Amino acid sequence: LAEGWASPLRGFMREHEYLQCLHFNSLRLPSGGLANMSLPIVLAVDDAAKDRVGAAPDVALAGPDGELLAVLRSVEIYPHNKEERIARTWGTTAPGLPYVDEAITPAGNWLIGGDLEVLQPIKYNDGLDHYRLSPQQLRDEFDKRGADAVFAFQLRNPVHNGHALLMNDTRRRLLEMGFKNPILLLHPLGGFTKADDVPLPVRMEQHSKVLEDGVLDPETTIVSIFPSPMHYAGPTEVQWHAKARINAGANFYIVGRDPAGMGHPTEKRDLYNPDHGKKVLSMAPGLEKLNILPFKVAAYDTVAKKMAFFEPSRSQDFLFISGTKMRTFAKTGENPPDGFMCPGGWKVLVDYYNSLQTEGATAPAAATV
Amino acid sequence: LAEGWASPLRGFMREHEYLQCLHFNSLRLPSGGLANMSLPIVLAVDDAAKDRVGAAPDVALAGPDGELLAVLRSVEIYPHNKEERIARTWGTTAPGLPYVDEAITPAGNWLIGGDLEVLQPIKYNDGLDHYRLSPQQLRDEFDKRGADAVFAFQLRNPVHNGHALLMNDTRRRLLEMGFKNPILLLHPLGGFTKADDVPLPVRMEQHSKVLEDGVLDPETTIVSIFPSPMHYAGPTEVQWHAKARINAGANFYIVGRDPAGMGHPTEKRDLYNPDHGKKVLSMAPGLEKLNILPFKVAAYDTVAKKMAFFEPSRSQDFLFISGTKMRTFAKTGENPPDGFMCPGGWKVLVDYYNSLQTEGATAPAAATV
Repeated sequence: LAEGWASPLRGFMREHEYLQCLHFNSLRLPSGGLANMSLPIVLAVDDAAKDRVGAAPDVALAGPDGELLAVLRSVEIYPHNKEERIARTWGTTAPGLPYVDEAITPAGNWLIGGDLEVLQPIKYNDGLDHYRLSPQQLRDEFDKRGADAVFAFQLRNPVHNGHALLMNDTRRRLLEMGFKNPILLLHPLGGFTKADDVPLPVRMEQHSKVLEDGVLDPETTIVSIFPSPMHYAGPTEVQWHAKARINAGANFYIVGRDPAGMGHPTEKRDLYNPDHGKKVLSMAPGLEKLNILPFKVAAYDTVAKKMAFFEPSRSQDFLFISGTKMRTFAKTGENPPDGFMCPGGWKVLVDYYNSLQTEGATAPAAATV
Repeated sequence: LAEGWASPLRGFMREHEYLQCLHFNSLRLPSGGLANMSLPIVLAVDDAAKDRVGAAPDVALAGPDGELLAVLRSVEIYPHNKEERIARTWGTTAPGLPYVDEAITPAGNWLIGGDLEVLQPIKYNDGLDHYRLSPQQLRDEFDKRGADAVFAFQLRNPVHNGHALLMNDTRRRLLEMGFKNPILLLHPLGGFTKADDVPLPVRMEQHSKVLEDGVLDPETTIVSIFPSPMHYAGPTEVQWHAKARINAGANFYIVGRDPAGMGHPTEKRDLYNPDHGKKVLSMAPGLEKLNILPFKVAAYDTVAKKMAFFEPSRSQDFLFISGTKMRTFAKTGENPPDGFMCPGGWKVLVDYYNSLQTEGATAPAAATV
């Protein structure tokens, strides 16, 4: 928020912005046009905090150690109707939505909006801050490299060769379209993810191995962290993913099957129709200038022994390796088929799951983390 | 739909229209602009009907007696995800939403969209068809009367003197603004309403008494039926109510407290924040040209012995008479305070509730209808 991912927002949403976000997935601009804004970017407070704020116009925001991080100016406090927020964002109120359980259910019954004045750049001090480029820093980097097209890839998982195929093929298509120097923004999500997803430091190490092993070309790839939590809100969330990357200078966005989707938390089906993310993105107010690059599904071609675009005419030759299956391979020490992932990247995952098992052996309670 | 209330829709929604409606409450026009469209206008079919349609491009729509009413051209069938539709339209999936229970839960798991070709004007043959003017017929009537402003009032209840105060005061304000001949469109909802609401024929008789008794001026008032079901979907539905009236030529829209709102079906609170309907309406894409006329709450002034705008400074003088209270008065034969409703209109309600009790005495099973 402080870095400009959610521009034109100037801070946490006030009620008029929150209502437009929930009902229209967009904000009216002073010009009369619309800016896309699909996810509420809000700060919840409980009754006690609301009482402490009282009629004060400005509120200081402190970090975990009490240090002053920012000031919220001209604040406005309004009710946090969690049920309505969840229903309009996820299209369901079924129990078990990861971000809802993590961040909304335990949150306060009030939202506080206002203009955010950040006193110093946000640092995480987790050894990964050099990966955290702001939208302005990314735009500067694209300029420095002389990019005439920037294509962004959102991910929250390790990069396998199917992903690499998508990205390299996109570059090929952009060159065919006449661009001279398309740059890839490989932009993993840095905030909250589901408990069974691979943690950020492991993913960053895996991504850097993918570049070291030459699966992606370091000359035309920028790896950076997108500091947003994962909502798993499908068609609503994919708009936020795209919009934030446009703010960072991307003009092409790669969209796979069922972006930001997941299984329904209580029923045996996808939470969203897998096609809806792409369709909603293509129709979203405020994203008219976005170039969407839909992609065919990649799978393991057992004949060619590599990841390839799925061909329905010889479907029996293809093997689908889901995230769950990949994690099972890595946990059990079994190797995936040759050509699924570069050896350096695969080793990072195996080492991570080994370290979990070692921890588990000495401290069983940690094994489920 | 056939008459143009939902223009620019040309029939039941196809999937790309349905998705825009659910996510953005608006439809992209060929011009690049947006038309407001907040409620899904869809036709559900079950598995058997889907199989019967098969790959046929056109589908005939028949009435209850099997007579051919319309043809749906170039049809498209897509999944009806009821949970997602309900959550995104109502902001809750709590059981007990009246329109959901009536029309969505029992409906089929598929939606069929296409261009609608209506073979003959829709007639209800209930003695009220002369009240059913199409948008075009209403525009013609406004022209005939030389209206230079049209202000619409949506209602699903009998007209009491508080409503009349709102409407007459609106006319006064429009005259003050310089309009010479503002015409009121008194536009009761003709479709599904909650079981405890007063039925349409009784309401129409009550409305005509209100004009006979001179509470509203017949010269500057047109009473017509709006053939839509009531969704009780608050901020989402009020946009539809306003948009349809714009299509019929209205340029001013009266909005009271909590339009299309109701109590939460399972919790002791309003389903929507009472202010949100007005706020969302004022921000809705495609309704920029709408003139919204927000109104103060009217209540019974026990000093002046008439309905008047509530004055918080002497709140103890005011009596709030809810729809439930009004129905209780009418059922028990008790008279409301003088000045609450014109005598002719009140008699219509008393006679209706008397007739229910008589039916109840002879046929107990009908008493709960």
